Amino acid sequence: MAQDAGSNVKGALGLPARRTPILIKGNDAIVKGAILAGARSYFGYPITPASEIAETASRDFPAVGGVFIQAESEIASINMVYGAAATGVRCMTASSGPGISLKQEGISYCAGAELPCVIATIMRGGPGLGNIAPEQSDYNQVVRIGGHGNYRTPVYAPASGQEMCDLTMAAFETADRYRTPVMVCADGFTGQMMEPVVFPDPIPARPEHDWAVRADAATRRNLVSSIFLEPDELEEHNRHLQRKYKEIEEKEVRFSEYMTDGAKLVVVGYGIVSRVLRSAVHLAREEGIPVGLLRPITLFPFPKKRLEELAHQAKRMVTFELSNGQMVEDVRLSIHDRIPVDFYGRMGGNVPTAEECLDVIRRAAREGGVL
Amino acid sequence: MAQDAGSNVKGALGLPARRTPILIKGNDAIVKGAILAGARSYFGYPITPASEIAETASRDFPAVGGVFIQAESEIASINMVYGAAATGVRCMTASSGPGISLKQEGISYCAGAELPCVIATIMRGGPGLGNIAPEQSDYNQVVRIGGHGNYRTPVYAPASGQEMCDLTMAAFETADRYRTPVMVCADGFTGQMMEPVVFPDPIPARPEHDWAVRADAATRRNLVSSIFLEPDELEEHNRHLQRKYKEIEEKEVRFSEYMTDGAKLVVVGYGIVSRVLRSAVHLAREEGIPVGLLRPITLFPFPKKRLEELAHQAKRMVTFELSNGQMVEDVRLSIHDRIPVDFYGRMGGNVPTAEECLDVIRRAAREGGVL
Amino acid sequence: MAQDAGSNVKGALGLPARRTPILIKGNDAIVKGAILAGARSYFGYPITPASEIAETASRDFPAVGGVFIQAESEIASINMVYGAAATGVRCMTASSGPGISLKQEGISYCAGAELPCVIATIMRGGPGLGNIAPEQSDYNQVVRIGGHGNYRTPVYAPASGQEMCDLTMAAFETADRYRTPVMVCADGFTGQMMEPVVFPDPIPARPEHDWAVRADAATRRNLVSSIFLEPDELEEHNRHLQRKYKEIEEKEVRFSEYMTDGAKLVVVGYGIVSRVLRSAVHLAREEGIPVGLLRPITLFPFPKKRLEELAHQAKRMVTFELSNGQMVEDVRLSIHDRIPVDFYGRMGGNVPTAEECLDVIRRAAREGGVL
Amino acid sequence: MAQDAGSNVKGALGLPARRTPILIKGNDAIVKGAILAGARSYFGYPITPASEIAETASRDFPAVGGVFIQAESEIASINMVYGAAATGVRCMTASSGPGISLKQEGISYCAGAELPCVIATIMRGGPGLGNIAPEQSDYNQVVRIGGHGNYRTPVYAPASGQEMCDLTMAAFETADRYRTPVMVCADGFTGQMMEPVVFPDPIPARPEHDWAVRADAATRRNLVSSIFLEPDELEEHNRHLQRKYKEIEEKEVRFSEYMTDGAKLVVVGYGIVSRVLRSAVHLAREEGIPVGLLRPITLFPFPKKRLEELAHQAKRMVTFELSNGQMVEDVRLSIHDRIPVDFYGRMGGNVPTAEECLDVIRRAAREGGVL
Repeated sequence: MAQDAGSNVKGALGLPARRTPILIKGNDAIVKGAILAGARSYFGYPITPASEIAETASRDFPAVGGVFIQAESEIASINMVYGAAATGVRCMTASSGPGISLKQEGISYCAGAELPCVIATIMRGGPGLGNIAPEQSDYNQVVRIGGHGNYRTPVYAPASGQEMCDLTMAAFETADRYRTPVMVCADGFTGQMMEPVVFPDPIPARPEHDWAVRADAATRRNLVSSIFLEPDELEEHNRHLQRKYKEIEEKEVRFSEYMTDGAKLVVVGYGIVSRVLRSAVHLAREEGIPVGLLRPITLFPFPKKRLEELAHQAKRMVTFELSNGQMVEDVRLSIHDRIPVDFYGRMGGNVPTAEECLDVIRRAAREGGVL
Repeated sequence: MAQDAGSNVKGALGLPARRTPILIKGNDAIVKGAILAGARSYFGYPITPASEIAETASRDFPAVGGVFIQAESEIASINMVYGAAATGVRCMTASSGPGISLKQEGISYCAGAELPCVIATIMRGGPGLGNIAPEQSDYNQVVRIGGHGNYRTPVYAPASGQEMCDLTMAAFETADRYRTPVMVCADGFTGQMMEPVVFPDPIPARPEHDWAVRADAATRRNLVSSIFLEPDELEEHNRHLQRKYKEIEEKEVRFSEYMTDGAKLVVVGYGIVSRVLRSAVHLAREEGIPVGLLRPITLFPFPKKRLEELAHQAKRMVTFELSNGQMVEDVRLSIHDRIPVDFYGRMGGNVPTAEECLDVIRRAAREGGVL
Repeated sequence: MAQDAGSNVKGALGLPARRTPILIKGNDAIVKGAILAGARSYFGYPITPASEIAETASRDFPAVGGVFIQAESEIASINMVYGAAATGVRCMTASSGPGISLKQEGISYCAGAELPCVIATIMRGGPGLGNIAPEQSDYNQVVRIGGHGNYRTPVYAPASGQEMCDLTMAAFETADRYRTPVMVCADGFTGQMMEPVVFPDPIPARPEHDWAVRADAATRRNLVSSIFLEPDELEEHNRHLQRKYKEIEEKEVRFSEYMTDGAKLVVVGYGIVSRVLRSAVHLAREEGIPVGLLRPITLFPFPKKRLEELAHQAKRMVTFELSNGQMVEDVRLSIHDRIPVDFYGRMGGNVPTAEECLDVIRRAAREGGVL
Repeated sequence: MAQDAGSNVKGALGLPARRTPILIKGNDAIVKGAILAGARSYFGYPITPASEIAETASRDFPAVGGVFIQAESEIASINMVYGAAATGVRCMTASSGPGISLKQEGISYCAGAELPCVIATIMRGGPGLGNIAPEQSDYNQVVRIGGHGNYRTPVYAPASGQEMCDLTMAAFETADRYRTPVMVCADGFTGQMMEPVVFPDPIPARPEHDWAVRADAATRRNLVSSIFLEPDELEEHNRHLQRKYKEIEEKEVRFSEYMTDGAKLVVVGYGIVSRVLRSAVHLAREEGIPVGLLRPITLFPFPKKRLEELAHQAKRMVTFELSNGQMVEDVRLSIHDRIPVDFYGRMGGNVPTAEECLDVIRRAAREGGVL
């Protein structure tokens, strides 16, 4: 029966019932993944390079009996998410840097009111209007929080079309498990790229949340709010939030490694950068450089523990980012500055080539006494 | 002549011509300081606990022939700041957490277009609506940047009524010197507190900016924009911004110390917290604990170098914040984790007492082998 | 099958399958009527005394698989109506005076682009905020057009709960037949009153409009727009609109009469006023005054022809309005000022009693030489 | 002294101190006139063909120490007018059809709260976006009121550059005298045309209004509001408004005539149309047709009395409008349909030529038995 429903949903999305890969844009895979995870409400406003998400959502959500609203503004859309999430349904929005900036108040409200929802950002060049080429310069905004108050949000960083689907699905599960907004944070490259993706079966419907407000007698007394006028109450609420983030840090870390066995040099990168680094590491290993790659899949929680372990084995680390150096601080904090951590960055939409990264690896290996 | 103008301005603000202290709220001192620094344009929207800034600005700016506009929204006000700043005049806005969240897009645009302006935030409880009691939980939003893109803004953190005036004036000078938005970041306590303030003479008018757009023939070809469609151009623009931030880090650091001579334990706090810590350090010294206080006056640039020096002399550090622990990461990064850095935080609007801080100091001294 | 669908729709609305009367508020009857007429999209913003429309729509539209969106503003909601109507679906919004004022641009756009849609207004006291008691002071706004440009909209003026349903259904039919926005214009009294209503069966689905834009290949070349940059083209478009309004004036007039046989005095009133007038006419006839009532059911087209006929038989007319005298001009224009037309009005939410109207009738009969 | 001030103001506006004509666009003349009438606050949003008003205002208002704000929207600007007017200062906004539609709520609020202000509309083609060529199709919106509630606004209809200045000045006087919003209603042709204009001396400052709210102790108890919750109070407020409109109808009518002596045919037109009609009447008189022109200068109050007098002398009337026939109803109502009133209209931005009007006059003369 659930299987049937699954087939129906996949059919409505134009997906094969079986696990046959289909070629699809990363942005589109986010939408399919959201619906397979049970999301039935999308509120958003189009912005390059995230626009396909809204476009595909406008077709796919109604196709499965869901709701798609192109709101009047980025602010309206995040507040609609707040409203929908308060009823307990799985819902989402998506945007790029300038839009995510506008949504900061709303995200903070969702975090304060502990509303599960998913916000995807497909990062472009900045600051200001910048351009529409890929960057990772919104790391601090997304991971260290651009809104006001003591909150955090789990952040998934897909590096492939498959992960655009899978991590979006994971994001909904995490959002519900911890009653928190969750970000899916990809660069414009990963959003625009077409790749074969195998779509999993839909997640079976879960029981309704007992805290939600569903306009019925049973939930009439439920209150969804971020106001705590008494300092002691707000402090206790914040301590509750910190305990939740602590638990997330303990249980939800995800990362992947490539050739870290015996690595004396560890390179760190996420998203599209990690794919370039994979090639560069492969080339470097062929040259005899003992280098490995650590790719954070969750940016919060950050793979601190594994990095610290690697810092005992390695002599040097290098982070590669499409930014002015933001994640590098999380790497340094993770390893307590035990070994030097270099940073190599490109900005403005430029993505380094494997050769370019290889050069950086060679230099770091030399300077770090790795060879 | 300039002196006369100064007397006139001070007279229009209801301030004594001489340097006689007057009793005034911190929020009001920001407005007087802004006007003494030459600001003549204020655009804002009221929000507790920053509302007195808008209220006083509505009287004081027109009183000196300036412009005050209560905009339709936080977003309208930051965009009016963008427009006014593009003409080269000194202008400002102010808000608190939720409003600053809404302004993130606009701040990023000002940073991208290199527009000098001052944005004051009087931090309250969060996340979401939270409450209107003081917090420092927007440190990451303000210092590590809540908007999109690779930008930073200098951040001044006043701890007294006098500094609410003086640092606002400094903020305007820094904004103009580096063509950058600058934040004045105070907690609600410092904003609401009344203290005696000596108001300096007005800063003499400076020459007009040659990059500004003043609707005349001379500036017709000037372009104020944050768009750079070509990745190489946007990358070069970003590298230019990073050089600017680097220079700011080298030249504009401000901090103050109290009893750090021979301190084996260093406590770090800013804003209202630093005043409580001063008392706690005094009490601890009387007990024979060799403790000193480092107070960052600029949060960006952060007093990294001085902290690192102190880390050679001390055995332990503790940061005190009205947050879940945000500045503590900057302390750890500054000293390369050379010695342990503890964190003690209150949230929800609660401010620790001197006794409470003293207890933390005693424990840190014991555990840190300081005694 | 269609009958089954009908039963299903009525069931989903909580209505009996048979034609059993149920007691219901006028505002609620509008929503049921809209859905029975095939509307599946509602966009609105709540305002007293129309709020029950939005509230009921929020339940009823989703219950039949339709869409309900509480928009960010009155303006957003009328523009969502524009968008939905452009796809050819039956859609509506509702408001009261202040909201209808805000929607004027949008209504003009719908008229210019010839988009069928229904806009209900439940009139309250004005001008400005006024109060929330019933008035008919928006007659000129609704009937003679408050938006810009040479357009008109058919206007239905219900006087009972039954008509709130029936005329809303008629409004949708007229909207589609003539590709035009249509107003349902009731006073707050008729909106708030509870009366027994027999709900008809749903109108069977009609074929899709060939001019609509449905995001498919077949309608890709359709253009829905109100722009005609060339004066000759815009003039021709306007002439086309005028021909349409002419046809509406010829075919769509609705009115009802009461005791007009041999009437030498004719009273004219619509909405709640007509019900009071019915009692007053009855009382006056008992006194021997040869008076009759003409109630316009459509305000545009106005029952000009019938009024002119009555002007040949009668010696005097009186219009009763909850306004400063607006419909009275349409009466005078209709009868070419052949006989005197008096006006009696109440404002501010006061509704005249039957006795009060009887007094006016007595005086008009005396002064008009009717007796 | 006042004269000096006058010279200063004219100097600041770039106008000659003496009464030398200068060549200027109609839209610009509105701005100069407003400032000469004492207006010092302008709030608006640009729209073709009214944009020069905002552009010139942005220079001229600050040049005389006044305020110019380009608001975020049409709605923001009319609400800023509401706020400024409540302080008793002379203030204005301007727009064209679509913008005036959006301002309807605000205008109704100003009327309800009895706030003096001036709103200029430079009419363009409609409905909807229409085009940017001149029309007079917003007559009903402007004269018979597009907002909600029982209000009216005086309407001045300039037909030349000189009147764009003079009638704007008159509008401010009327607004203050009666505490009412006043419209200046011109077609796009009159707004865009350049003509020589002699600018009068500034109107001397008038005493402050005792009802205004000026943020001082003296006016602390003044209340500016359009809310009257009790029906009897709102009815009394409405009766007060009607008495005011009655007084305006008695005292403020303005019109001009051309060759109406002995005219058996009277043509009626306003704005640019009246100038074409003047030529046509001249040509017709040369042919021996006894025709004259009545030009309403105020559209509300309408020159009813004079038209009725002319209806006793003439056999036929014709109104010429750039619309579907809106003013014609006011002509018919004025003369109680005593003689036939024809209508000739152009739409879409087309303006009839003098020859074209002459043809209409010839035909009307023939059919009307005038010859």
